Amino acid sequence: MTGSTAATFTADDYRARMERAALEAAEAGLAGLLVAPGPDLVWLTGYTPPAVTERLTLLVLAAGQDPVLVVPALEAPDAHRAAGAAALTLRDWTDGKDPYAATAALLGVSGRFGISDNAWALHLLALQQALPGSSYASLTEALPMLRAVKDTAELGLMAAAGAAADATFEEIRGVPFAGRRESEVAADLDRLLRRHGHEQVDFTIVASGPNGADPHHEAGDRVIARGDMIVLDFGGLRDGYGSDTSRTVHVGEPTDEERRVHDLVREAQEAGFRAVRPGAACQDVDRAARRVIADAGYGEYFIHRTGHGIGVTTHEPPYMIEGEERPLVPGMCFSVEPGIYLPGRFGVRIEDIVTVTEDGGRRLNTTTRELVIVE
Amino acid sequence: MTGSTAATFTADDYRARMERAALEAAEAGLAGLLVAPGPDLVWLTGYTPPAVTERLTLLVLAAGQDPVLVVPALEAPDAHRAAGAAALTLRDWTDGKDPYAATAALLGVSGRFGISDNAWALHLLALQQALPGSSYASLTEALPMLRAVKDTAELGLMAAAGAAADATFEEIRGVPFAGRRESEVAADLDRLLRRHGHEQVDFTIVASGPNGADPHHEAGDRVIARGDMIVLDFGGLRDGYGSDTSRTVHVGEPTDEERRVHDLVREAQEAGFRAVRPGAACQDVDRAARRVIADAGYGEYFIHRTGHGIGVTTHEPPYMIEGEERPLVPGMCFSVEPGIYLPGRFGVRIEDIVTVTEDGGRRLNTTTRELVIVE
Repeated sequence: MTGSTAATFTADDYRARMERAALEAAEAGLAGLLVAPGPDLVWLTGYTPPAVTERLTLLVLAAGQDPVLVVPALEAPDAHRAAGAAALTLRDWTDGKDPYAATAALLGVSGRFGISDNAWALHLLALQQALPGSSYASLTEALPMLRAVKDTAELGLMAAAGAAADATFEEIRGVPFAGRRESEVAADLDRLLRRHGHEQVDFTIVASGPNGADPHHEAGDRVIARGDMIVLDFGGLRDGYGSDTSRTVHVGEPTDEERRVHDLVREAQEAGFRAVRPGAACQDVDRAARRVIADAGYGEYFIHRTGHGIGVTTHEPPYMIEGEERPLVPGMCFSVEPGIYLPGRFGVRIEDIVTVTEDGGRRLNTTTRELVIVE
Repeated sequence: MTGSTAATFTADDYRARMERAALEAAEAGLAGLLVAPGPDLVWLTGYTPPAVTERLTLLVLAAGQDPVLVVPALEAPDAHRAAGAAALTLRDWTDGKDPYAATAALLGVSGRFGISDNAWALHLLALQQALPGSSYASLTEALPMLRAVKDTAELGLMAAAGAAADATFEEIRGVPFAGRRESEVAADLDRLLRRHGHEQVDFTIVASGPNGADPHHEAGDRVIARGDMIVLDFGGLRDGYGSDTSRTVHVGEPTDEERRVHDLVREAQEAGFRAVRPGAACQDVDRAARRVIADAGYGEYFIHRTGHGIGVTTHEPPYMIEGEERPLVPGMCFSVEPGIYLPGRFGVRIEDIVTVTEDGGRRLNTTTRELVIVE
C-alpha cells in the first residue's frame, strides 16, 4: 500500500503535513501528538511498520520541535526507507529497554496530548503511568478533521480510486448472478478492483435477497436466484487512497414495491448529496437523506448513519450523523449512503463518495443510480 | 480464520474459557476484563467482527456475572453467528447512541479492569472518562499468561500448523533460489503455506546475503546469487492457530565462517530448547541460548530476544527475554529462535516452535537444523 503512496508524496510533503499537524495541535491546546502505526502515521510519514505488535512505534509531534519517530531497533531499517524518513529523527530502542521512559523524556511532564484513536491501550496505559501528570485525548476527539481535508494531489488519487470502483461496477453488472453464490460474485469484485489498480480490497459485500436486510452482511454461500435484490458494496485502497461505492441491482424484473423502495433510497441519496456545501454541518447531510426516507414511512428501516469520511482509510471522520455539527470544508471526502432494510425480505443501499467543492459537492462515483437489472 | 476455529470449538468450550478468565481476573484483584476485537476476543468467544472500526465492540467479563458482548447493532447478526454466541449476552447499540455509558453501566464505578493490549486508545479514554474512579491494566500486564497455556485440542492444532510449516520448508528447499528475486521465493512460501492448509499467512521472510543481517527484512527485489546465505522465516494461521519457523539455507557451498556461524546458532538454539522445562523461568531460555553465542564472541550480533509465544496469533506472551521471570508451564507454546546478524554481510536464524511438556519441551518443528544447501 505505502509503496505507491511513497511514490506520490515526497519528504517535503510529509514535513508540511507534520508541521501543520503540530500547529493544529498547539491551536487545540495540546502539548503534542502521539501517532501510532496506522492511517495517521501513513498520512504523516509514509511509514507502515512491517507488523503492528506490542513493540512501541510512535511518532511524537510538537510545535517548535523536530518530529521524532520512536521505533524498535529491529524495524529501524524499515523506517529509514519510509518516504517521509528524511523529515524525521528516528529514535530506536532495543528489546529489553523501556521505550516508554524514552518517549516520556520527549514529552512535557504534565501536558495534554492527542493520541491516535487506534493506538494500543497497552501503550497508552504505559505512557499514563510513566507521566502521571499527563492527559490524553483521542485524535478523533481532539483533531477530528486532521486528515479530512484533502489537497489537490490527494483529490486526484481519490478520484482515480473512485473511477476504478466505477469501472468495477460497469464490469460486474455484466457477469451472471442467478445460480451463483454470493461469495463467487464477491470474488469477481475483488479481482476486478485489483485489476483496476487497487492494492488492497477492504470489503466486497454481495447481500442478496433477505441478506440485503443486514447492512453488514458480507457475502456467503447463498445461491442468488431470479427475483433477488442484491446490495453490492465494495472498496479498498488504490495508490493508498480509498474507494467505497454501493449499488443495488435486481436479478430480472423487480416488483413494484422493490422499485418503489429503490426509488426512495435514490431520492434520499440525491437529497443527501444536495445538502453538501461548504459551511453546512455534517448532520445536515444525514438529516436531508433521512427526511426523505422518514417522510415516506420507512424511517425505522434506515438503521445507520448516512456517511463516513474516506482517505488513506475507507472509514474515518467526518461522520454524517445527527449530532455532528462540524462544518463541511472544501476538500473533505465522504460517503453518502442511505439505505432501507426490510428484515427477512430485502435491502437497498446507494452510495457515492462525494467531495466538498467551493460551492457544493462533486460525486467521485458516477455510475447510474437507477436500478440496474442483471441476469 | 474463525470459520475453522468455530468448527473446532463449541459454545461450551468458549463458556469454559470465559469462566476461567473471569476467575483468573478476580484472583488477580481485577473487577473484570474488557476484551477488544482481536486474538483475545477470538480465543474467548470465537468472534471476529467484520472489520475493526471506531465503533465499540467489547466483551465484558466479571466473576459471577454473565459475559456481555457490547456490539454495534449493525454487526449484531455477525456476533450472533459466532461459535461462542450461545455463551454470551449480546447488548447492541445503535449509531448515535453512547456505547460507553452503556458499557460503564456494566462495570463497577471504581474497579480496576484488565483490558486487551490492542484495545483502541479511543475506547480506553472514553471509558476512563465515563468512569473516572476506574483504573485499567493491560491484559499483558495483568494476566499475561491468560492464553499462554494450550489445552489438548489447541495443542493438536498447533502441531498441525507446525507440520504444515515443516512441509512448506521441505518443498521450498527444492525450488530454485539462484537468479530469482527474494520476493519470488516469498511468493512460493505463501503459496505453499496456503496449500498446506494455512488460511492466513503472516510473514514470508526471504533475507538473502547482506539482507539477512536485518532480522526484520521481509523480501525484496534483490536477486539471489550463488554464495548467499538466506534466512527463511515464515508462518501464519492454520485452523486459527499459528506456525512460525526459520531455517537458514545456503546457495551452493558455504565458507568456513558461514558454516561456523550457522553451527553456533544451531548450538544456541539447541541450548535454548534444552532449557525448556516446567518451572524454569522464561528468561532461562533466553540466557541459555544467548550464553552460547556470547561465549563464542558474537554476543553483540544477537540483537533480539530468543522467543515469543504463539497461539491464536503468531506473536504474543510469554516472551523469552531477560527479566521475564514467570515460570514455564506445560502447554505453553513459544518460539526458540536465536540468530547472529553480521551487518553488511549475512545473518543466520534457526527457529522452532516448542511446547512445554510435563518433563521438558517438545519441538513442533522437526525439519533438519543442519545447514541446507540449495541451488
